[in-house]
Amino acid sequence: MTKLAIMGAMEEEIEPLLSHFKDVNIVEFANNKYYEVNYNGLDIVIAYSKIGKVFASLTATTMIEKFGCDTLLFSGVAGAINPKLQIGDLIIADKLCQHDLDITAFGHPNGFVPGGSVFVETSKELRDVATQVANENDLKVIVGTIATGDQFVHSTERKNFIESTFKADALEMEGASVAVVCDALDIPFFVLRAISDSADMDAGFDFDEFLKSSAVNSANYLIKIVEKL
Amino acid sequence: MTKLAIMGAMEEEIEPLLSHFKDVNIVEFANNKYYEVNYNGLDIVIAYSKIGKVFASLTATTMIEKFGCDTLLFSGVAGAINPKLQIGDLIIADKLCQHDLDITAFGHPNGFVPGGSVFVETSKELRDVATQVANENDLKVIVGTIATGDQFVHSTERKNFIESTFKADALEMEGASVAVVCDALDIPFFVLRAISDSADMDAGFDFDEFLKSSAVNSANYLIKIVEKL
Ligand SMILES: N[C@@H](CCSC[C@H]1O[C@H](O)[C@H](O)[C@@H]1O)C(=O)O
Ligand SMILES: N[C@@H](CCSC[C@H]1O[C@H](O)[C@H](O)[C@@H]1O)C(=O)O
Repeated sequence: MTKLAIMGAMEEEIEPLLSHFKDVNIVEFANNKYYEVNYNGLDIVIAYSKIGKVFASLTATTMIEKFGCDTLLFSGVAGAINPKLQIGDLIIADKLCQHDLDITAFGHPNGFVPGGSVFVETSKELRDVATQVANENDLKVIVGTIATGDQFVHSTERKNFIESTFKADALEMEGASVAVVCDALDIPFFVLRAISDSADMDAGFDFDEFLKSSAVNSANYLIKIVEKL
Repeated sequence: MTKLAIMGAMEEEIEPLLSHFKDVNIVEFANNKYYEVNYNGLDIVIAYSKIGKVFASLTATTMIEKFGCDTLLFSGVAGAINPKLQIGDLIIADKLCQHDLDITAFGHPNGFVPGGSVFVETSKELRDVATQVANENDLKVIVGTIATGDQFVHSTERKNFIESTFKADALEMEGASVAVVCDALDIPFFVLRAISDSADMDAGFDFDEFLKSSAVNSANYLIKIVEKL
């Protein structure tokens, strides 16, 4: 690895990283800010994409093609589907899918378009490092499927659809788009999230309350992983 | 302009362009093919992204950041909302929006996320060229709003929602993501589509029947525009 990209979607998701890494150099590009830092000899570029699949695709592509990053880690918050996941808990994606991608009218499965695949897998090497870090620090981390869509899900009906269709453990709004980009560009990546809400009726309320503390949980774990890379 | 990007989403949408421009040089990148050609002294890169917002964002970003394109034109097919649009008819977007982007749970309007805007406008200069070409060739072209989402719309209910929420004239699955990317990277762009279906019950059937002929309509008009640039 020569340069590491660390992405979040919202400012709150990268703020704990910026405070930790300190002395960042700000580069303005693509109507956004990219934060460069050298940490323990490792070149890192940090950015939050803004919410949703399109901004996340743009930012991931830019970090790779423009900034020359060759590994990408995503840190942020997510809604829980798996009942084992409580607010604040950590999940690492072994694979991701787009729950709102739908050309089923043509007989294709949900989440599929020709030339793509329903699920994109994350890097096993990076997951192994993450698992080792979790063990060493006594952190409970679930490894599972994360489903991404351009809607903030706050209904049991939609949550159940995503659970039954994709067997997803958590859902958010950027991960699978980053996965598609990294997969196409052949860049090892993973997506780490801490639970902010349970994607049901109360999701909006819980999200606002737990965004910051869950974003910090995710970032703290991510920093420990970066120190092992 | 030093290098022009021309994008479609599906192979059928760029095939008529490749036949016309001939002698293309194929570059394999990002798990896709990029077709380079010099036409009347103008450097052009052509690609189809594959279907949907994420692939389209990746391809648009790549054409700009990796291939150095500084103007982007999109050609393809769309479902009609405006009843004036019949199958085969041409529409140029003056602005585009994402109809399936929804964090309304937090009080934001449909299609909006912080740091973005519901509508992204296309280049007035490019639209003016297109209008002039239409007049000179007696082509009927509607200028209006195109709504993009990661679902193939084939229901009157969804179509009505998009019509009433965004006053959209047509809908497809890539345009607004290309718009967001070009806007962020400050690249003049436009989106041209020919109608393949009317986004209702019969959409899937009509789409398969009219994809090729409508894609040719869009491509033929686009070629005339390119000759004016
Ligand atoms: N309260 C915000 C909206 C959050 S949408 C949810 C985000 O967090 C989720 O984990 C998704 O990945 C999104 O990035 C606002 O009002 O703008
Ligand atoms: N028949 C195809 C699916 C077409 S989805 C519709 C595409 O055309 C529309 O205009 C959208 O922009 C999409 O790119 C298939 O079965 O794969």
